[in-house]
Amino acid sequence: MDQKQYKRKIYLEDKPRIEARDELLAAFDLPSQKEWTKVEEALGRVTAEPVFATESMPHYHASAMDGIAVQAADTYGAHEQSPLRLALGEQFAYVDTGNAIPPQYNAVIMIENVNVIDDQTLEIIEPATPWQHIRPIGEDIVQEEMIFPQGHKLRPADLGSLLAARITEVEVFKKPAVAIIPTGNELIEVTEKPQSGKIIEFNGTVFANFVKEWGGEPHLSGIVKDEPEKIKEALLNAAENADIVVINAGSSAGSKDFTVHIIHEIGEVFTHGVAARPGKPVILGKINGKPVVGVPGYPVSAYLALEWFVRPLVCKYLQIPEPKRQTVQVKLGRRIVSTMGQEDFIRVNIGYVNGQYVANPLTRAAGVTMSYVRADGLLIVPTNVLGYEQGELAEAELLRPLEEVDSSIVFSGSHDLTIDLLSSQIKRNRNDMKIISSHVGSMAGLLAILKGEAHVAGIHLLDPETKEYNLSYVKKLLDGMDIVLYPFLKRKQGWFVPEGNPLGIESVKDMAEKKAHFVNRQRGAGTRILFDLLLKEAELTPDNITGYSREMFSHLSVAAEIKGNPEAVGLGIYPAARAMGLSFVPIADEEYDLVMTKDFFESEKGKMLISVIQSDDFRQNVEKIGGYKVVTGAVPKIG
Amino acid sequence: MDQKQYKRKIYLEDKPRIEARDELLAAFDLPSQKEWTKVEEALGRVTAEPVFATESMPHYHASAMDGIAVQAADTYGAHEQSPLRLALGEQFAYVDTGNAIPPQYNAVIMIENVNVIDDQTLEIIEPATPWQHIRPIGEDIVQEEMIFPQGHKLRPADLGSLLAARITEVEVFKKPAVAIIPTGNELIEVTEKPQSGKIIEFNGTVFANFVKEWGGEPHLSGIVKDEPEKIKEALLNAAENADIVVINAGSSAGSKDFTVHIIHEIGEVFTHGVAARPGKPVILGKINGKPVVGVPGYPVSAYLALEWFVRPLVCKYLQIPEPKRQTVQVKLGRRIVSTMGQEDFIRVNIGYVNGQYVANPLTRAAGVTMSYVRADGLLIVPTNVLGYEQGELAEAELLRPLEEVDSSIVFSGSHDLTIDLLSSQIKRNRNDMKIISSHVGSMAGLLAILKGEAHVAGIHLLDPETKEYNLSYVKKLLDGMDIVLYPFLKRKQGWFVPEGNPLGIESVKDMAEKKAHFVNRQRGAGTRILFDLLLKEAELTPDNITGYSREMFSHLSVAAEIKGNPEAVGLGIYPAARAMGLSFVPIADEEYDLVMTKDFFESEKGKMLISVIQSDDFRQNVEKIGGYKVVTGAVPKIG
Repeated sequence: MDQKQYKRKIYLEDKPRIEARDELLAAFDLPSQKEWTKVEEALGRVTAEPVFATESMPHYHASAMDGIAVQAADTYGAHEQSPLRLALGEQFAYVDTGNAIPPQYNAVIMIENVNVIDDQTLEIIEPATPWQHIRPIGEDIVQEEMIFPQGHKLRPADLGSLLAARITEVEVFKKPAVAIIPTGNELIEVTEKPQSGKIIEFNGTVFANFVKEWGGEPHLSGIVKDEPEKIKEALLNAAENADIVVINAGSSAGSKDFTVHIIHEIGEVFTHGVAARPGKPVILGKINGKPVVGVPGYPVSAYLALEWFVRPLVCKYLQIPEPKRQTVQVKLGRRIVSTMGQEDFIRVNIGYVNGQYVANPLTRAAGVTMSYVRADGLLIVPTNVLGYEQGELAEAELLRPLEEVDSSIVFSGSHDLTIDLLSSQIKRNRNDMKIISSHVGSMAGLLAILKGEAHVAGIHLLDPETKEYNLSYVKKLLDGMDIVLYPFLKRKQGWFVPEGNPLGIESVKDMAEKKAHFVNRQRGAGTRILFDLLLKEAELTPDNITGYSREMFSHLSVAAEIKGNPEAVGLGIYPAARAMGLSFVPIADEEYDLVMTKDFFESEKGKMLISVIQSDDFRQNVEKIGGYKVVTGAVPKIG
Repeated sequence: MDQKQYKRKIYLEDKPRIEARDELLAAFDLPSQKEWTKVEEALGRVTAEPVFATESMPHYHASAMDGIAVQAADTYGAHEQSPLRLALGEQFAYVDTGNAIPPQYNAVIMIENVNVIDDQTLEIIEPATPWQHIRPIGEDIVQEEMIFPQGHKLRPADLGSLLAARITEVEVFKKPAVAIIPTGNELIEVTEKPQSGKIIEFNGTVFANFVKEWGGEPHLSGIVKDEPEKIKEALLNAAENADIVVINAGSSAGSKDFTVHIIHEIGEVFTHGVAARPGKPVILGKINGKPVVGVPGYPVSAYLALEWFVRPLVCKYLQIPEPKRQTVQVKLGRRIVSTMGQEDFIRVNIGYVNGQYVANPLTRAAGVTMSYVRADGLLIVPTNVLGYEQGELAEAELLRPLEEVDSSIVFSGSHDLTIDLLSSQIKRNRNDMKIISSHVGSMAGLLAILKGEAHVAGIHLLDPETKEYNLSYVKKLLDGMDIVLYPFLKRKQGWFVPEGNPLGIESVKDMAEKKAHFVNRQRGAGTRILFDLLLKEAELTPDNITGYSREMFSHLSVAAEIKGNPEAVGLGIYPAARAMGLSFVPIADEEYDLVMTKDFFESEKGKMLISVIQSDDFRQNVEKIGGYKVVTGAVPKIG
């Protein structure tokens, strides 16, 4: 590698995102191509021209009822006191719904309102008014009427109206072909064997499916190496064959970020960098008259950049408005800091607690795909806003339907593997209900209950004085609230060590003496509190522990860190060690309980939660994991 | 046909809709089948089991930046005043984003923050903190973590997380097979030639596409004749091969409605009739353990019944919650009457006018597919509500995105063919903008402006006193408002007569003398006012006119009525006659103008409207129709 490349510093622009998009759109008068498709296969397609009815519906005067067709004038005078008789063939004809009205008749009497006298004669006791119960020609659709304008996305019922108007083929916009080019020496196909330093190419699949959802036709190419010639060839080829070109990664200003130079060389660059995060290092340009969008490699940045710039191009091609997400007003559960002059797209969890929507930011790391997957919404901090204080109100765009947010149980507090199982089991009983959880640690969980930002908190907090779990913390922190402390699990805490315990760790003292690399938990986590207690009992300080400042947010993350490092050690629950194939040295049986308000405990959601916890199914599934015991026949410790 | 069948009166039940649905769902513990699919092809599929990560992402400590990997301890002491030199291979290694961190290092310094001294040496001026700019193992996904529970519908970004966790295949629920059986002797395939009394089968296509949209797999059969044996055979066959059976029509209580008896004979009937309109005559039952839903023949009834009963079955099979529509609070533009004890599903147009959503009911005729297609929302009148007064507030479910409602121009008043063209042209300029129009006649259009329920009204009202168009009506009805009367079109009014004018109609007098069948327009329509004036001038009364009471709501509907009846005559505009191939006897050149508030005239929407009207493109398209002249360089008559 030639280090001199590092010297070439390119600074990204800070162009406002909307300005960049509008410039991009203005630069292309996309020549949308059209094609004919069968109406039966036209769902989701977009009309390319106004559609006019070829035939009226109905195309004849049709009976709207089962009954008899009559000439209204023949029925005048009929009355309950003086029924009127009508002769078949002369004064009436039987008609069923949809039948044509014989030309000599102009009204229909419902079959319920006639009395059959004999095969040829009926009696009526009420006159008919002209045109009653008749669907006139064109009641639904009149021949030559415009059924849809151009740019109409066809829905199921729309297809019915087209067929009713005897339209069997419809001219629609071709789906714009979107070429997707993944680049990078570090990428491997998902089928290849993973090695250190290599990552699976998955952005391309995500892009392709976004494009499909927006109405385009994705063309995903194989991985292109970080070599200028290969990238150039791929771009030229794509610009030749597709309507829109997306190239993934190489859009920033690093040593291997050739893309901007190549586009500049073979086409034109409009924008390199927008004032929005994540997703800032984007390239907008054109090659061969086709729009080219270079998106960053980090997945969340890439998803956003795609939505900002590729979706508008697809929609412009199809002449449809860009779909907008439903928004909801949320109260910030935590402070959000943003930079002046930059938009910030913050992934948030949203829960409906105590009559309001509460939003809590997820990680802002652009490489964490699960933060986008788990997010309930996106909170967009505008350019001129420096952020939001905790408790402030803001608008969030929803990433899942509001009713799903409404019916979720918001779980906070300590991480435990059974919470996912619990959610899965609840969903099995009531498919619109599930748990959304944030692993913030026991103490933060209690605070979430205090602030009304969560329905339930899971805690395991050992009181150093009483050696009792949880109760004293709840009493102290949630003093004055109507709280239920519900016994949930007994679980085994212990040392996580590499298989075979190579350093022979049995205690904190061993760790300090053998200079083991400790992987700690975050402040406020029950496990951290336990560790600090063990440290104090051993008369040691954080300075004696290598790695004390290295904090992870879950048992599994700790376990993942220890795997493969023979000198590492962590503290956590047995099932996490087992899942990761580590050895485990048990040191305590701890009580992991649930905290909730009495109101929630007695609510429909609360009852569902408790009934699932107490079900045999759930208990058996949990105990199958190992290291757990669900407290059966639990009685709340308080409340 | 055996008339005695008519005597067999079956009364439909009035079971509450929700009760009927819950009974239906409770009767089936659908044995959802599962299958494996490639992740790349899994968009929109629903996970059948919880999905756990097979591998961590990243699966090694990875650099989060382009830069150098260092041991943090080696960098302590670096300062602007005392830069620190590092040797390649001993104290640092170059890393790009995504590269593995060599095991001897524990931090990354960004390339921007290093100075290259020579090939082997760098200088830094700031120390690194341990783990800075490193993505630890499992930062995104930790091996064994539950990524999705069962019952999760996969979105584009979800596929990325699955691949990132090295999951290449996912177990999903099979799409439930939904058999759709259209029945009816009156039905013909869309490809057959239409005859009187025959209607095109299109419900099946609509059902199939609804099912597809909900996640099922439709199996649409050919048309089955109204013969008990054939229907029985089709039902048994469907119940054998599909998961859910839908049979269309024959669900009511008419002479050929065998379906309920057949289901009763070969299976079980739970419900026949629900207390909801339209869609009331529904059959819910089972055959061979499979749910069977019989839906009415009228399309709008059928669409609703499908949504009420088939969608929940599909969702139950897939273990996903039923999607709900966004709702909006609307002000009723007209009174709505409902029946106690029945739910009413009213199709409404919704416009955003003067800061509020105004809803106006469309026709309630269940046979009018366009009323569902054109509806912006559904207003559901609950069982225990008798209806709503004009001006009352109610909740409507949206059938199109709220932003489309927001950006629509609400047009009221007289029907003119150019309004669709205008809408189409506006949509070409701004794909999120269009006109939603209701043809209520000139007078009702003026009232809509008065009540603030429309943005624009089209009127052509001849003052019998002054012989002048429109101005006097506006001055009288909209007195005191800030109004703009904008000259729009000159158009030809005249008699619509069958080709060749067989009765030789030239005047009202001719009509009366020759007893022609007149097709009238509704009260308040400009054309009706013109006709009444002609009648008065001829010193005739409505009694002299056959068909005076037969009212149609548009020029095209009048023309459709006249086509094929050699004795018919109507009054209307030239292009409608021409579109329908009628002869036309001109009698007046009338002025069709637009009325709007000054606020609207000056708004963004108003400006767009006027600029399109004044464009050459639009004028040429209108004049191509014939019988029209767009007023060029128009100056408002008032305002």
